[in-house]
Amino acid sequence: MPVILDANESPSLEQLLQAIPESQALVTSWQVGPQHAATHRIRGIGPLGSAGVHEISFIVAPKYQSELEKTSACAVIMTAELAQANESICQAKGFGQVICSQPYLLYALVARWFDQAREPVRKGGIHPSAIIDPTADISPSAIIEPYVIVGARTRVSDGVQLRSHTVLGGDCNIGRDTVFYPGVRCYDRVTVGERGLIHSGVVLGADGFGFAPNPAAGVGVWGKIAQLGGVRIGHDVEIGANTTIDRGALDDTVIGNGVKIDNQIMIAHNCQIGDHTAMAACVGIAGSTKVGARCTIGGASMLSGHLVIGDDVHISGGTAITTDIDTPGRYTGVLPAAPHADWQRNAAVMGQLSELRKRLRKLERS
Amino acid sequence: MPVILDANESPSLEQLLQAIPESQALVTSWQVGPQHAATHRIRGIGPLGSAGVHEISFIVAPKYQSELEKTSACAVIMTAELAQANESICQAKGFGQVICSQPYLLYALVARWFDQAREPVRKGGIHPSAIIDPTADISPSAIIEPYVIVGARTRVSDGVQLRSHTVLGGDCNIGRDTVFYPGVRCYDRVTVGERGLIHSGVVLGADGFGFAPNPAAGVGVWGKIAQLGGVRIGHDVEIGANTTIDRGALDDTVIGNGVKIDNQIMIAHNCQIGDHTAMAACVGIAGSTKVGARCTIGGASMLSGHLVIGDDVHISGGTAITTDIDTPGRYTGVLPAAPHADWQRNAAVMGQLSELRKRLRKLERS
Amino acid sequence: MPVILDANESPSLEQLLQAIPESQALVTSWQVGPQHAATHRIRGIGPLGSAGVHEISFIVAPKYQSELEKTSACAVIMTAELAQANESICQAKGFGQVICSQPYLLYALVARWFDQAREPVRKGGIHPSAIIDPTADISPSAIIEPYVIVGARTRVSDGVQLRSHTVLGGDCNIGRDTVFYPGVRCYDRVTVGERGLIHSGVVLGADGFGFAPNPAAGVGVWGKIAQLGGVRIGHDVEIGANTTIDRGALDDTVIGNGVKIDNQIMIAHNCQIGDHTAMAACVGIAGSTKVGARCTIGGASMLSGHLVIGDDVHISGGTAITTDIDTPGRYTGVLPAAPHADWQRNAAVMGQLSELRKRLRKLERS
Repeated sequence: MPVILDANESPSLEQLLQAIPESQALVTSWQVGPQHAATHRIRGIGPLGSAGVHEISFIVAPKYQSELEKTSACAVIMTAELAQANESICQAKGFGQVICSQPYLLYALVARWFDQAREPVRKGGIHPSAIIDPTADISPSAIIEPYVIVGARTRVSDGVQLRSHTVLGGDCNIGRDTVFYPGVRCYDRVTVGERGLIHSGVVLGADGFGFAPNPAAGVGVWGKIAQLGGVRIGHDVEIGANTTIDRGALDDTVIGNGVKIDNQIMIAHNCQIGDHTAMAACVGIAGSTKVGARCTIGGASMLSGHLVIGDDVHISGGTAITTDIDTPGRYTGVLPAAPHADWQRNAAVMGQLSELRKRLRKLERS
Repeated sequence: MPVILDANESPSLEQLLQAIPESQALVTSWQVGPQHAATHRIRGIGPLGSAGVHEISFIVAPKYQSELEKTSACAVIMTAELAQANESICQAKGFGQVICSQPYLLYALVARWFDQAREPVRKGGIHPSAIIDPTADISPSAIIEPYVIVGARTRVSDGVQLRSHTVLGGDCNIGRDTVFYPGVRCYDRVTVGERGLIHSGVVLGADGFGFAPNPAAGVGVWGKIAQLGGVRIGHDVEIGANTTIDRGALDDTVIGNGVKIDNQIMIAHNCQIGDHTAMAACVGIAGSTKVGARCTIGGASMLSGHLVIGDDVHISGGTAITTDIDTPGRYTGVLPAAPHADWQRNAAVMGQLSELRKRLRKLERS
Repeated sequence: MPVILDANESPSLEQLLQAIPESQALVTSWQVGPQHAATHRIRGIGPLGSAGVHEISFIVAPKYQSELEKTSACAVIMTAELAQANESICQAKGFGQVICSQPYLLYALVARWFDQAREPVRKGGIHPSAIIDPTADISPSAIIEPYVIVGARTRVSDGVQLRSHTVLGGDCNIGRDTVFYPGVRCYDRVTVGERGLIHSGVVLGADGFGFAPNPAAGVGVWGKIAQLGGVRIGHDVEIGANTTIDRGALDDTVIGNGVKIDNQIMIAHNCQIGDHTAMAACVGIAGSTKVGARCTIGGASMLSGHLVIGDDVHISGGTAITTDIDTPGRYTGVLPAAPHADWQRNAAVMGQLSELRKRLRKLERS
């Protein structure tokens, strides 16, 4: 597991490495397992523990060495050091070896190769059930699946895939080779760059949450502030399932190049996210906050509004950021759980900390 | 409120109990309210406080006894003890009584009966607007609603309902009697067992969040790790609205039998959730974490990645789990709110705790 | 940025103010910038920093005065006090001025005017691809876009817009002028009042999360409690993208008038939200909790189930509410992050607080 390809579509080890040009620079030597024919087909890639005899596997760190003894993989990607250190195991098991300076990178390349090899060929063109505004500009190489809707003056570039049920509003602009999975919703005036991956359930450009008290209309009544801005997303951005990015109030909400956004993330109006920043699932970023380049934000973190977070800031999961951060580094704010009774005992003191500090000070002075 | 059925479709108390075979073992006696004819129709079930004269109600604990005096229900499910303790009230109010060892269970059975009685008859077969790959295998008893899409080689078993706009990718396998509410998205290679309930907006099998630094392509650039695994979901699983479960990187993401997952939950790639575990809304579980069987996870909790949580672990709402848990029991990590000024005063000390401990130690030694 | 309208559709300053009747009461005087002709067209509205020469701007507080020197806007909305204090800058820059008692309110009115001016005219009537149950009651002035589905006996009032792919179940009731953006899902028996805005990906009326242990069926097995109630939403409610509001178990889940709900919020079964309460993104409210009127709930806060929160309670972002609150005021419970090492040092003491208190007490007594 997982076997990816049928036997007759699968490469030998030699063919696999040849099919991945980047492997030339990484692989110093390779050999088919002594128990396998040179024509043995490699049908997939799996972890040491679950790979079967038709799969290649890999080892990225010495701590996994014990799994080498148990693997059924027909070949293993490893460093020269690990191969040497485990020479007897490798001989006993008889799997093939691919000696490589960066096994994790080669794993990623092999995985990508299998992913693309099994990808079904998708028919180009516009499905007859798609409803395209006559003023939209659709590249002939774009793939528009069933029940897609594209609004007025929207531009869909070469190689874009709009999977089924995706809706693009008016005046959107989608860069080449970007893929929208089924059921993405873009409101009007959303721009997405090239080579993006936008997963199912994503909503881009819904109204920012802008209200002002309208006491003339009654006690507590909120008046809506129209959200006139758009959303601008750079190149090479991936956006996970059910994430929402709201349109700006006046200026646009802006996502930089190479940003990676996991599932169920909320980015509010007028946020700006710097290039190559990555954020794990369930993060919420309140309005007008600017996050720098190359930051990482751990899952379930929240950032207050109107903050400025500099470049190269790394926020641990579950952390609340409520003030600006201008110094690169790692920031944390999560309290690990404890057995319930212990926690209750200690949490009760949380509400007395200020008083305890006073009492301590008093003792120190006496 | 809520009246469920029209009068002419509604049962008398006798007919209602007869229609629920399980009630035989639970009900020791019952009687129509002295003010009602034996033919009085029961059109729904409601709480004591809001049930009307055409509804049955129930009382599950002595603390609700005071509501008996006010109820308008035509009959009340209760234990013999509570009936005896409230004999005068029952007589004065004149409602019918169903004496029963487990009133909550009987309520659940009655509610289920009304729910099924009002469920519209849905037409079998495939709506002409559904787009089914010719290689898909659809049971003749499945119900495929408008604008559904089913991919290549996907199997849809007997009695499955795919409500409108649901999308199944290729190589999916859906077990019998599972219901997908409108607008569920399954990517390729997702398996769902029998009798599942998958609510609107759920996304199953989107790419796990897997990236590796790719410095050769530029400072901070992320390279995508293809996500080759699938999602495997057991029998009798309910998944709440807008929840996302990502596909595995190599092996599958696995959800056990009888697992109950509320709304807006995020389960990352390669997680494994044990049988009969239940988790309340807004929980996030990071990649590769294993949760045991029969656990409960309170709302808005977050679990870090690569953890192992044993069986029968109960996590309070709002708790962050950052380490393995191998002992059954309840774990907590949420700090209750306080009036703002109090909180500010105490939270400020949080950043000095280590120093305070030192000062205390110094005092102790002096 | 953002230019909104084409030049030939755009008003002069005089025409703009005339087009907004409410401006009469707010504006004490206005003048076209000396460098602009009286016929200069105003094509949009922007912040001081990014507005161009075809846009009007505004200044809401003295702290933004420095931006007046840099703005390119052709006119600025400001108070008489700020105009006087910046007289020389205003003259030097030569922008027009709109002197107004409440600049923020006038900004909101101007923004709303531009928003409506650019809104495309939408064709009334029912798109032929929409599937409407013959027993549904659709106003002739409603707009039903492609791939919409409307269930049995559902009522759609005057001026309602059901954008593409929206699904309404049976027995729903939608008040006049309410707009559903693309891809909203309503289950059966959901009521939405007048003038609502329901954003993409919202799910209304999915089953509440109700289960009871069913030991007869096996260790740990959960039995489902049918969710018989509905969802009732008042007038003038906005619901953000991908928010979910579950149906009640017996009674309805109820959202009051004028409530504003941001994105990715979860409101569980049987909650009641009071009029004009506003909640920011990523809030979760567990089952049966009642929130009063005119409350505000900061982003990523969580409220436990079965609580009663009074009127005029303001909850800071990231706060966990686990007990009733009956006194108006602001409540907080979020710990701000710190540099990782500092946090680790202090968080470790969190698990010793109770013991530290004991040691302090001992010292005090000695």
